[in-house]
Amino acid sequence: MKLVFLGTGTAFPTPERNHSGTYIDIGPEAFLFDCGEGTQRQMAIAKIGSSKITKIFISHWHGDHVLGLAGLMQSMQMSNRPHEIHIYGPEETKHRFELMRKTFGIGLSFHYIIIEVKGTTKPQKIIDEADYEIWAVKTIHPVPCLAFKYIKKPLRRIDIGYVSKFGIKAPHPILKKLADGKNIKWEGKVIKAKDATYIKPGIKISYVIDSAYSKHLSAFAKESDILICESTFGADMQDAATLKGHMTTKEAGKIAKDAQVKELIITHISQRYKDPITLLKEAKSVFPNTKIAHDLMEIKF
Amino acid sequence: MKLVFLGTGTAFPTPERNHSGTYIDIGPEAFLFDCGEGTQRQMAIAKIGSSKITKIFISHWHGDHVLGLAGLMQSMQMSNRPHEIHIYGPEETKHRFELMRKTFGIGLSFHYIIIEVKGTTKPQKIIDEADYEIWAVKTIHPVPCLAFKYIKKPLRRIDIGYVSKFGIKAPHPILKKLADGKNIKWEGKVIKAKDATYIKPGIKISYVIDSAYSKHLSAFAKESDILICESTFGADMQDAATLKGHMTTKEAGKIAKDAQVKELIITHISQRYKDPITLLKEAKSVFPNTKIAHDLMEIKF
Repeated sequence: MKLVFLGTGTAFPTPERNHSGTYIDIGPEAFLFDCGEGTQRQMAIAKIGSSKITKIFISHWHGDHVLGLAGLMQSMQMSNRPHEIHIYGPEETKHRFELMRKTFGIGLSFHYIIIEVKGTTKPQKIIDEADYEIWAVKTIHPVPCLAFKYIKKPLRRIDIGYVSKFGIKAPHPILKKLADGKNIKWEGKVIKAKDATYIKPGIKISYVIDSAYSKHLSAFAKESDILICESTFGADMQDAATLKGHMTTKEAGKIAKDAQVKELIITHISQRYKDPITLLKEAKSVFPNTKIAHDLMEIKF
Repeated sequence: MKLVFLGTGTAFPTPERNHSGTYIDIGPEAFLFDCGEGTQRQMAIAKIGSSKITKIFISHWHGDHVLGLAGLMQSMQMSNRPHEIHIYGPEETKHRFELMRKTFGIGLSFHYIIIEVKGTTKPQKIIDEADYEIWAVKTIHPVPCLAFKYIKKPLRRIDIGYVSKFGIKAPHPILKKLADGKNIKWEGKVIKAKDATYIKPGIKISYVIDSAYSKHLSAFAKESDILICESTFGADMQDAATLKGHMTTKEAGKIAKDAQVKELIITHISQRYKDPITLLKEAKSVFPNTKIAHDLMEIKF
């Protein structure tokens, strides 16, 4: 499982930072959070194919978050994508997606499903799978914009060593009951789930991009293992940040601190900052366990 | 004056080759031929600003030639572009441009003028300025597609050394007549234009991209100093090339040879070719003075 920052800049790309795009590989499938212009080339550079991506999450329809979608769709089409794709985005995503197809003549023979999420400050569970959930919440930005959260559910696993003492060899159908947390009987003996299993903890990754500071975002990111948070501006540009619906380094730090996350990664760095060290220092002054994202940065989790 | 290859690949970008985009700086202004996804980032890497670009020429509306236009327009807008831009493209360019603006909510406060060119196999002069012309011709491709040609006109210049012998110091209003090719009288003496001036030769650059082979393209590129020609495929993929409306290396070479150009630069190289040497050899076997373009390649002229 890994997280790859495909683009960590804003609207003006720089040689160092492309527009927004974050890839999360959760094992059997992968997600793409935002798809700014040039995302598919960043994927090529990172040796990431498009076929594993099952879901794309668009935070909002500002160019630096979505202008790569047309190209990615065309490439998926040319690659004869065999399976469907789900695209989540704010209001108007369906209409804009179809306009985009019309503009550039994008014919798609694979199935695509667009799910519009009307953002609210109360978090909404938008996906509930057996082993993970995705949540969305509204951000504070001039256009409808969503933050997302991936939660891998904690998983009860069999302690193979323990059950083997009873002569059960995995895989065995009876183990399913244990995995469900139920005690079993085996050759006259009771094997308790609490002894024969352990909990593999889940993981929580929050993606808060393009928003002014707001307390509800801390609540949303509560106890995340990783909080990816926009930090377009340095602390000296507080007024510009608030005005434009963005955060400063210190505000990103405050979100992380209040949310008691394990790690903060700041991204969406304005082109005006050539040296990221000052930004990192500022965020760290509020929340010490902070990293600053750079393009193609990879984090295993 | 320089030519910069911003992108030399096709629909699938590779770490080495971005989608189509060619920048031509003619001194007081600059042109962009095609604007594939990621073109503005390639410009940033090449340290090329957008403000000097006065005209954009779109060959056709396939994604790899046009998906960077929205981002470039947005960046021009955010840079408070003071002057207008002219965008030339095939049929439907106006309609698609406006759809594109609507899709991505692109507000433009600078003036833009879109000129649709209905391509014909007979070349059309689409721009006639004092010192240069631009011509367009239809190519052979599944959608309306244009090839372009830039012609810098030959210019009569004053031989400053010669006129100074007569005591005329430049700049002097009387020199205008000489520059127009007329003889003048000066202190009782006749100064002949043919002695006092010389012709600075013009230059011809042809841009033929996304087309199957066709003789009329040789006629169009006739005696170009530089012919930039698509060569999507190697000679072994002749059938695929023709079917898809593209050329092979050898066909690009044949266009150059028949057109008696000075130099051929092949570009629009399919992602399947990791090693360009074979392609270059094939083109050279037909037209020896051939180069293969690579991203950010710069040619002064």
